[in-house]
Amino acid sequence: MKIAFVQIALAMVVIAISCKQHAIQENTAVAQLSTPLFPKGEKITNSNFTGDVWLNSLVNADSLNSIAVGSVTFAPGARTKWHSHPAGQIILALEGAGYYQEKGTAKRILRKGDIVKCPPNVSHWHGASIDSNFVQVAITGREKGETVWLEAVTDSVYRKP
Amino acid sequence: MKIAFVQIALAMVVIAISCKQHAIQENTAVAQLSTPLFPKGEKITNSNFTGDVWLNSLVNADSLNSIAVGSVTFAPGARTKWHSHPAGQIILALEGAGYYQEKGTAKRILRKGDIVKCPPNVSHWHGASIDSNFVQVAITGREKGETVWLEAVTDSVYRKP
Repeated sequence: MKIAFVQIALAMVVIAISCKQHAIQENTAVAQLSTPLFPKGEKITNSNFTGDVWLNSLVNADSLNSIAVGSVTFAPGARTKWHSHPAGQIILALEGAGYYQEKGTAKRILRKGDIVKCPPNVSHWHGASIDSNFVQVAITGREKGETVWLEAVTDSVYRKP
Repeated sequence: MKIAFVQIALAMVVIAISCKQHAIQENTAVAQLSTPLFPKGEKITNSNFTGDVWLNSLVNADSLNSIAVGSVTFAPGARTKWHSHPAGQIILALEGAGYYQEKGTAKRILRKGDIVKCPPNVSHWHGASIDSNFVQVAITGREKGETVWLEAVTDSVYRKP
């Protein structure tokens, strides 16, 4: 009977170890997969944004290639001011939950994989939702000039469903 | 003694169930995190590629916004032909391991988060590595015309370290 006890105890130890090892492997996989696509970059210190926003300038426009690409990370509640782009802008949503609104239309919720094609010279804003961060790639043609910055997005506009 | 046996058996069942539940939770997390950023799209059937390649056209260029954006998935060994872009191209590496080579230079290995800024009219190719798939976003200005397709990338060029 004692031998049976030892065998059972041994089996329990084996189950517990295999369970632990499995958990370690899975956690490693989760850590690898949840690595952000791009580093967060530098905190934006200019007055064109409300709240905490970080920019990683991935590609700068130059005389040969007029397209600029940047990864932007918005803390919950953070957003751009109203603004427009002379050549429009494309937004690819990477992580979290964000908002996008063009003047005169309802705001849209953006999640991973969503795409916005913002037309030239249309006033709009984008940013994180109230309780989640938001990471996006912004693709902007610079051949027709720089972004035109307008007024801040008020709390009441930001919070309007 | 029989009661002790039942208790031990019960404890083993509890450990096994809790281990299984943990594994299910972890697998769900892995599945969520490993969801591709964009769906794979349609298999490319034209002759500009070698091997199996899928395209998801995220944004088409139009008269207002000249930038096209697409997600391209290459199976292991698959690649473009040599080609060039009149307005250049930007590549963002999303997943897997890929290659990028400009004519006259050594090929470069691309991994998640790597960025290529390919100058206008420079002959180049890109694709998956030999033993891994490769997913990339291609950002292409269409204002100066369409891609110029050239000869296929031979196996010896593709495999050269």
